[in-house]
Amino acid sequence: MGEAAFDDDVLIDSPARADTDPEFVANLRQAIADADGDLVRRMLVPLHEADIADVLEQLSASQQGALAELAPDIITGEVLAELEPDSREVVMEYLDTAHLAAAIQELDSDDATEVVEEMDDATRAAVLAEFSDVDREAVEQSLSFEDETAGRLMQREFVAAPEFWTVGHALDHMRDAADGLPDKFHDLFVIDTGFRPVGEIPVCRLLSARRDVALSDLMEAPRILVAPETDQEEVAYLFQKYHLVSAPVVDDAGRLTGMLTLDDIVHVIQDENKEDLLALAGVNEAGLADTVYRSVRSRAPWLLVNLATAVLASGVIALFEGAISQIVALAVLMPIVASMGGNAGTQSLAVAVRSIAERDLTAANAVRVVWRELATGLVNGVIFAIVMGLVTVLWFQDWSLAAVIAIAMVLNLACAGLSGILIPLAMVRSGADPAVASSVFVTTVTDVVGFLAFLGLATIVLL
Amino acid sequence: MGEAAFDDDVLIDSPARADTDPEFVANLRQAIADADGDLVRRMLVPLHEADIADVLEQLSASQQGALAELAPDIITGEVLAELEPDSREVVMEYLDTAHLAAAIQELDSDDATEVVEEMDDATRAAVLAEFSDVDREAVEQSLSFEDETAGRLMQREFVAAPEFWTVGHALDHMRDAADGLPDKFHDLFVIDTGFRPVGEIPVCRLLSARRDVALSDLMEAPRILVAPETDQEEVAYLFQKYHLVSAPVVDDAGRLTGMLTLDDIVHVIQDENKEDLLALAGVNEAGLADTVYRSVRSRAPWLLVNLATAVLASGVIALFEGAISQIVALAVLMPIVASMGGNAGTQSLAVAVRSIAERDLTAANAVRVVWRELATGLVNGVIFAIVMGLVTVLWFQDWSLAAVIAIAMVLNLACAGLSGILIPLAMVRSGADPAVASSVFVTTVTDVVGFLAFLGLATIVLL
Repeated sequence: MGEAAFDDDVLIDSPARADTDPEFVANLRQAIADADGDLVRRMLVPLHEADIADVLEQLSASQQGALAELAPDIITGEVLAELEPDSREVVMEYLDTAHLAAAIQELDSDDATEVVEEMDDATRAAVLAEFSDVDREAVEQSLSFEDETAGRLMQREFVAAPEFWTVGHALDHMRDAADGLPDKFHDLFVIDTGFRPVGEIPVCRLLSARRDVALSDLMEAPRILVAPETDQEEVAYLFQKYHLVSAPVVDDAGRLTGMLTLDDIVHVIQDENKEDLLALAGVNEAGLADTVYRSVRSRAPWLLVNLATAVLASGVIALFEGAISQIVALAVLMPIVASMGGNAGTQSLAVAVRSIAERDLTAANAVRVVWRELATGLVNGVIFAIVMGLVTVLWFQDWSLAAVIAIAMVLNLACAGLSGILIPLAMVRSGADPAVASSVFVTTVTDVVGFLAFLGLATIVLL
Repeated sequence: MGEAAFDDDVLIDSPARADTDPEFVANLRQAIADADGDLVRRMLVPLHEADIADVLEQLSASQQGALAELAPDIITGEVLAELEPDSREVVMEYLDTAHLAAAIQELDSDDATEVVEEMDDATRAAVLAEFSDVDREAVEQSLSFEDETAGRLMQREFVAAPEFWTVGHALDHMRDAADGLPDKFHDLFVIDTGFRPVGEIPVCRLLSARRDVALSDLMEAPRILVAPETDQEEVAYLFQKYHLVSAPVVDDAGRLTGMLTLDDIVHVIQDENKEDLLALAGVNEAGLADTVYRSVRSRAPWLLVNLATAVLASGVIALFEGAISQIVALAVLMPIVASMGGNAGTQSLAVAVRSIAERDLTAANAVRVVWRELATGLVNGVIFAIVMGLVTVLWFQDWSLAAVIAIAMVLNLACAGLSGILIPLAMVRSGADPAVASSVFVTTVTDVVGFLAFLGLATIVLL
């Protein structure tokens, strides 16, 4: 370390960006192929755990395994916690149980739980058997809460003081108990005699307070008290809304049982965002280290659904085979109406999904937003009706055909706007995730309406 | 306040969720319509600033304006900072310059800059004229940095101490200077005689340290030193990677000039995620309060691009008018091949955009990922070639037609996989945002290849 390297315009005090340096990764691959454990160590030890994890993720699964066998000491608890689940799974297969247990026990309880929860049952039982009783109980309690809840996410290490203490009391206590304090904490929780949180004091405010001030004079009421069952997305929303850095978790009796911190919430925010983006594109889940098999498995189901809706849309076209055989230009132009509708619908949908995720779209303003989307669809419909009408006249010298495509365009873009907002709202009302299946429904609507309006009008007007 | 309300499974110490309560919003609308300023105040004063902002955003622009005229004192600096830019703009029109200037000066310099930067030039000049010299200079310096850089995002309020001080020195100094400290801070920066940061100490560690310990024994080297020109996305990535809560910003000479904090970074993360999701769907920017005009303006450009590519794809179809007029089933089936390609390409693209955003996809592993996407495309292609082949046989009793659509499906899904990864990679290499225009290019490829492969093969095989 020691030396600061200048990388682009950010100075980083560690060998900069080893993970994105193809030469570094190539050299590491060579060292693994040569089974040169010393060289592997010399290359990786100077790096931050997050960088080691990133470099490991650049390797193939077999190289990751070989590295774990060659230099197991590189895979500390922190490195395990930083690894993506896929890579972590691979690496853990090559580590012995005692090493794994020791590495994981170094971590705060939330990180330990994250690593342990993805193990298969046999491995987990073997690893937990090596834990101290206290650590095992902490992890088992966390695991007793549902996935993606505050209970899973919280750490059991926090700092609390009774409300009748002064700042001096609290400072002396923390100095005495320095070893037992969590790695990092940002708020001191103030509790009553029933261990219920009644206040919180940002640590920076403790620093600047006089020793004889009572904690109860310095504290503010906790902005939120989180129940362990709370969905992590809900917690993330509240952290953002109120600019929280940490928040107390309480049990059914209102007793302080854990703490959530903003840096865990950041991961939740990223995960939820990733889920939304992938869901809108029809991908169930994805990691960069996915094999072809996993990629196919996470994408094929949505392609199958898409195939079904595409066949449905083709069924609509088939109703008009007669018209198409008389005027082939209809076959040439019909995908344009459907494509524009699909695009406009996806636009509305993306705006709606974002607004729902940010809690901006609510029952109180839904009507206004639905009108806005319908009006936007109509205005865009008129704009592109004119443009496409002119293109049609230039291309086919047929004013009636131009009128047909223009009217179909207005109809389809209006439907696109409406379905782009109404379908996700309906999903929310029925308790489903609006990002997940909405886009299939929306494009089904725009395909069917697009083909039906264009070919139907053509049949009436042109034949 | 005082009373804690139980809302779902989260306890919030403020009238819970006023912003999502249609009745509350309806009552507020009525109070505004009745010009009853006292009632408006009684309803809003008990709320947290973030809640007041959320409630305001539920109102129409004219109601927001009327509220600002009725009860300007409700619109504090914090409320302004919490408002979405659109609503903030509306509200500020109705506040007089002196009120605005006083409200904004309450804020830390980063929040003040955020509010000031979106004013038109005349308003900004008038408001800044009312500022104290120190505050005006801070905001003007922040504004001198590009939008979306660390310089814009940082606050000028931070806490630093010379490296030869002890913990006791630092604590005494902070107690004496309590009024001049920033609202919140999480790290004490340790500086050398040239005001260059040489270390940082989490505030919680200061609390538990003995008074006679030297700061230089307690500090760790700063994980990153950020230049003000650094892109905010880059900074957000480093905060996440190294689990930072704050980071020092340094000028060209390496002197400490500001501080970035995680809660600002959370907004950056959300904004960048939102940008990516909307960009993939072809929306330039969107707020829920957007008017129809703004919605059309942010979506029509991409619809125009889509129209151009759709016309291009239709041009491909037009090449095969002869074939279609002989076999109308081709017109019925061709959208299926294109639609499946578009879907598969969007899946690849979404995975690629996410991986690039998370810095997982790099030069070191790009080749492997390209192969994975090609292979995934081929495997899905074979699966859906079989499915669609069978559907075609059942539907049209034509084995040759089934063979044609099956081969076209494999070709198009392989192309979809490849273009879904290669196009965003090419965008990155050329310095462009991979989320922005990639999806148009990908669907152009899958439309053209889909129609060309299906109709071309049909011409060769069936005619």
